[in-house]
Amino acid sequence: MKNTFGNNISVTLFGESHGEAIGAIVDGLPSGIRIDDDFINSKMMQRAARSDISTDRREPDVVKLISGVLNGYTTGTPICIMIENKSVHSADYSYLCDTPRPSHADYAAYVKWGEFRDWRGGGHFSGRITAPLVAAGAIISYALRQKGVFIGTHISELHGVCDRHFDNYTDDIKLLDKKPFPALDDQREARMSEEISKARAEGDSLGGILESVIVGLEAGVGEPWFDTVEGLLAHALFSIPGIKAVEFGAGFAFADMKGSEANDHLCIDNGKICTETNNNGGVNGGITNGMPILFRTAVKPTPSIFKNQKTVRISTGEETVLSLKGRHDPAIIHRARAVVDAISAIVIADLLVSKHGTDWLR
Amino acid sequence: MKNTFGNNISVTLFGESHGEAIGAIVDGLPSGIRIDDDFINSKMMQRAARSDISTDRREPDVVKLISGVLNGYTTGTPICIMIENKSVHSADYSYLCDTPRPSHADYAAYVKWGEFRDWRGGGHFSGRITAPLVAAGAIISYALRQKGVFIGTHISELHGVCDRHFDNYTDDIKLLDKKPFPALDDQREARMSEEISKARAEGDSLGGILESVIVGLEAGVGEPWFDTVEGLLAHALFSIPGIKAVEFGAGFAFADMKGSEANDHLCIDNGKICTETNNNGGVNGGITNGMPILFRTAVKPTPSIFKNQKTVRISTGEETVLSLKGRHDPAIIHRARAVVDAISAIVIADLLVSKHGTDWLR
Amino acid sequence: MKNTFGNNISVTLFGESHGEAIGAIVDGLPSGIRIDDDFINSKMMQRAARSDISTDRREPDVVKLISGVLNGYTTGTPICIMIENKSVHSADYSYLCDTPRPSHADYAAYVKWGEFRDWRGGGHFSGRITAPLVAAGAIISYALRQKGVFIGTHISELHGVCDRHFDNYTDDIKLLDKKPFPALDDQREARMSEEISKARAEGDSLGGILESVIVGLEAGVGEPWFDTVEGLLAHALFSIPGIKAVEFGAGFAFADMKGSEANDHLCIDNGKICTETNNNGGVNGGITNGMPILFRTAVKPTPSIFKNQKTVRISTGEETVLSLKGRHDPAIIHRARAVVDAISAIVIADLLVSKHGTDWLR
Amino acid sequence: MKNTFGNNISVTLFGESHGEAIGAIVDGLPSGIRIDDDFINSKMMQRAARSDISTDRREPDVVKLISGVLNGYTTGTPICIMIENKSVHSADYSYLCDTPRPSHADYAAYVKWGEFRDWRGGGHFSGRITAPLVAAGAIISYALRQKGVFIGTHISELHGVCDRHFDNYTDDIKLLDKKPFPALDDQREARMSEEISKARAEGDSLGGILESVIVGLEAGVGEPWFDTVEGLLAHALFSIPGIKAVEFGAGFAFADMKGSEANDHLCIDNGKICTETNNNGGVNGGITNGMPILFRTAVKPTPSIFKNQKTVRISTGEETVLSLKGRHDPAIIHRARAVVDAISAIVIADLLVSKHGTDWLR
Repeated sequence: MKNTFGNNISVTLFGESHGEAIGAIVDGLPSGIRIDDDFINSKMMQRAARSDISTDRREPDVVKLISGVLNGYTTGTPICIMIENKSVHSADYSYLCDTPRPSHADYAAYVKWGEFRDWRGGGHFSGRITAPLVAAGAIISYALRQKGVFIGTHISELHGVCDRHFDNYTDDIKLLDKKPFPALDDQREARMSEEISKARAEGDSLGGILESVIVGLEAGVGEPWFDTVEGLLAHALFSIPGIKAVEFGAGFAFADMKGSEANDHLCIDNGKICTETNNNGGVNGGITNGMPILFRTAVKPTPSIFKNQKTVRISTGEETVLSLKGRHDPAIIHRARAVVDAISAIVIADLLVSKHGTDWLR
Repeated sequence: MKNTFGNNISVTLFGESHGEAIGAIVDGLPSGIRIDDDFINSKMMQRAARSDISTDRREPDVVKLISGVLNGYTTGTPICIMIENKSVHSADYSYLCDTPRPSHADYAAYVKWGEFRDWRGGGHFSGRITAPLVAAGAIISYALRQKGVFIGTHISELHGVCDRHFDNYTDDIKLLDKKPFPALDDQREARMSEEISKARAEGDSLGGILESVIVGLEAGVGEPWFDTVEGLLAHALFSIPGIKAVEFGAGFAFADMKGSEANDHLCIDNGKICTETNNNGGVNGGITNGMPILFRTAVKPTPSIFKNQKTVRISTGEETVLSLKGRHDPAIIHRARAVVDAISAIVIADLLVSKHGTDWLR
Repeated sequence: MKNTFGNNISVTLFGESHGEAIGAIVDGLPSGIRIDDDFINSKMMQRAARSDISTDRREPDVVKLISGVLNGYTTGTPICIMIENKSVHSADYSYLCDTPRPSHADYAAYVKWGEFRDWRGGGHFSGRITAPLVAAGAIISYALRQKGVFIGTHISELHGVCDRHFDNYTDDIKLLDKKPFPALDDQREARMSEEISKARAEGDSLGGILESVIVGLEAGVGEPWFDTVEGLLAHALFSIPGIKAVEFGAGFAFADMKGSEANDHLCIDNGKICTETNNNGGVNGGITNGMPILFRTAVKPTPSIFKNQKTVRISTGEETVLSLKGRHDPAIIHRARAVVDAISAIVIADLLVSKHGTDWLR
Repeated sequence: MKNTFGNNISVTLFGESHGEAIGAIVDGLPSGIRIDDDFINSKMMQRAARSDISTDRREPDVVKLISGVLNGYTTGTPICIMIENKSVHSADYSYLCDTPRPSHADYAAYVKWGEFRDWRGGGHFSGRITAPLVAAGAIISYALRQKGVFIGTHISELHGVCDRHFDNYTDDIKLLDKKPFPALDDQREARMSEEISKARAEGDSLGGILESVIVGLEAGVGEPWFDTVEGLLAHALFSIPGIKAVEFGAGFAFADMKGSEANDHLCIDNGKICTETNNNGGVNGGITNGMPILFRTAVKPTPSIFKNQKTVRISTGEETVLSLKGRHDPAIIHRARAVVDAISAIVIADLLVSKHGTDWLR
């Protein structure tokens, strides 16, 4: 299904970095979901490029809803989200056609599509395609919040700088809602920004680790085989350009634990069955257990750096040196959090609607 | 689609730990693929329980191919793989009905399916369901090997003991083919086995990290959005009971790297475009670049341990202490490698067949 | 997806006419659906071969439920239905390997799968594969009846003999439940049986038209594009060997009508919105309108006849004459009604569960 | 999947009759397919409203390709087709909100989506949504023609007027390419047009039967279960507003035939295996046999007529009389042929690409 994801709620992506517009189709939503423009715009702002720690390409990213919405509510038919590309300098990229950027999709795209590929600005691989994805996620996320499901993501680590851990999830999600840069601790935020600025000044780039939480999700959602909560989230999350790792709960830290240390004992809290710890990140056997869903994703440093790099000239089969031009992000992790939130909302809403029926989300 | 995975080649799983039989349907294979019983059995043996480091439940796991095979070759129609359950002691589990095991799927299953669930031996959540999955993967893996695609997995870390790194991938895969316990280094293997035996003696359990490689895969396979190589592999891998993390290439280590350290420079090797390093684990923008696919998965300690644990009595809503009986694995990581290999084979074959057409795999 | 059909409830088929067993996997049913053996067997009997108007191959068709059922109720996991093949005379077919039967799938299968195909008794194309499909449909149909949805099919026409029209749908469905031969009128039934016997005596075969009704289905089910009620039913119905046409409501008769004759006026009946006529067969714009779903399917004469027929010898590329041996049905239409009912149940249940959630069907 | 159809090549539809724009996403095409604007426009013209036998709504239907195309060739990424709605008179429809048109989707849509539905001009149910579908089909159809696969559709019957039968398929397809009104015989065409004009003058409407042929399709395409050629075509065809019946080959006429009359004998023609007759319409057991695919679809009279009709007032639950305003087609069958061709192209291309791989279509 390639550019379409989801079973009962699905999202289809289209568009290229330097095309006329980029967009998404959201299908499967019930009628009667309110379109809250402020909420959508707040999410778009979280993804927007920012001053000295982002690319110089500044896109207004006005979200147009071409179909599926009437008088501020969903109609039940597919929603076409469209965002025009306004700030396009394709000439900057023409030389990349023959000299692929290391660690970028340039070479893989060349092999896959040959001379016909849209090489302008990374084409369909561009991080720009995440803009309509964020808009799609925002529509769904707004609906989920009416049902008590909240999602939030912060940068837990960036080039040696660690944010504080989540404390009260609900409060922290509200805090992150308002923060343009997604660190919980203001001092750590300043140091992370500094690190990015420094990398930018050096013509280099940084990655990091995002930590996400989903609260308010009932137990009993997900499937034991294949359509596990972890599997569905990971499938979609790995689409985000630069994401190279996903772990749930204790994740890789399980490797050094014994069962007696790792197991989450069950207990009764306020008459409700809970676990004392949450090493499993809210999922057992692929199915939610009612505890918060916790996961972390690794974002690699953006591959487009301004330092000279070795590459090859495809046309001649010779090695050469690449000296990059154009406008590029020294880091995308602070912008990626909005994408992680969006994808999480889409996956969780799909699971809930599969369980409860389409109209449940209304 | 729940218990079915794959687009052009798909696998459907069925069965419960203590039911009559467990099995899988493999659909989408072309006619004319040879069924090599020795190869299938060698993979089944890799997954089989072993002496003092596994459960006492010993299943012969005879693989029966009910349909889709004639005279030793696939016919092009769905292959039904069936494996009978022979060693079943359901009574051991009856008390678990009301007192879910910590970190096991017991409680999630109760919420999802209520009193009707098959609680016997973990039911559909049991690791036993991976037996037909391994058989399915073996059929496909054999076909892939005829096309030059080889897959291998070893335990890179187990409770503080690290295996050596992959050296020559092809040689190491051949080495792992023959090893009942998947460590590359014999001394590390002995220490890992010891750790498991010790945990078993203590009534405890261990997890660890598996490292996998796929060699011989052409560049240009996979999709930029949603059906990325990473996303498809991760989706399927998270089905394996106990897998809680997946990383590709440098994975979480990217968090501390700069772009200039992380980027894989392109070069020419024997007239072929390669990369000098392989931090991206063979995938850029979701698409293979021709380098080996490298990924690591974290396996949590098996939740069924014999030490006393806190849990709740569902019927009364009271906290209680669980003292486990029955037969359980002190670790499943050495058995899980066969499952990781199987799942990888299924996903990669599906991608290749989508690109080249069904008959390509013949 | 080939041998799998359905979104939230799916059915996967496997098996060959002369293999060890044939079967189906039913996935997506909630836990807690009662398995009524008598109901399932009554449906299997409707499909069973009968005395002088069917093939001499008599299969006991004992339905075994290998997984997904415990203590007489579904557990929520995939149900594997298995039926052993008992009466197999493969030798009868060996000569067909090289001389395909006219209008049968023999030649198409040869082109698709080559020498590796299972040619024994029609292999995977055999009408036998409908046996597990009927069992799958019966499990689902039983659940639908608890929700007030009833399905019935009769032979409306067979070689010039027409049955009476449906009168009271609910009564007629009950009547058909009990009838081994699905004609509403006993005299027409006798004449239809006679026609089949006569064709059999001549070494010839017959087809006919089946008419089906689904009552008790709420309005608002289905989708305007692609997943229309008509499209989903037709997709699945055309799988039944020999089905070559499907029409809803007035169907082809619309060609000679004007809008003013064809339109179903809306009215109020007992406070409920209905239509005065039902030319649309209960579906408008792909979505149910609350009226009974009415459709007709054409079944072609079974291609395996005993009269000499022209065919070709594949190995030599020469024309030749085929003189058929083996055991074949002179008509399958009376047996096909159970398959049409089964497929209808599967499609309708899938639509309802998509709308209301999985547990709705419990 | 609702508004998405197809496995390896998929089409997603969006838009409403009176929204800003309507469109389609075509995914799964290889890079390097030429976009022939003239061919696309010729197909759009076939679907366009015409003078006195169509609605007065005249839309320019300019096809914009927003993504997936560069320098006149597909890039391999999703193609977003967008067509603006220019001639919108929503006020004409406001009264329909409460008084559903008989045989139209109005009432079903009300039940499905309630007050939130887009009732303007039929919303998402409008025949307008077929415009981007025709554009999508045209892109694919052009590619298929380079592979020797040609598709054509004519009106075989309209209110008692029958067209001549297909003669030489290839010549007749070329003939139909050029004809704005799809009748093979000019005199019959005149009489059909007359019938439509007469119905229009009476404030009434007509339906009819379309007959389609697909030539140049190789044998061995399709699947025996579920994804049969007939099932896939029918699934998609029933999406076309007003299509209520689909038959392949002899279709319903099989009901009166014996096997000895119906069977298509195999023969050798120019060294190639063929059948003497083509009662099966080129498909056996769901798989192509190399003969032309032949099918017929019934189109019901357009439900929007200007004669007074009985309907109900939803708000009060009372019966009332509907006197229609607005602009409506007295018949859509002549416009629908382009839609049938488009859908056929999409389905066949998907099957071929599944068999031969994505790049085959290039």
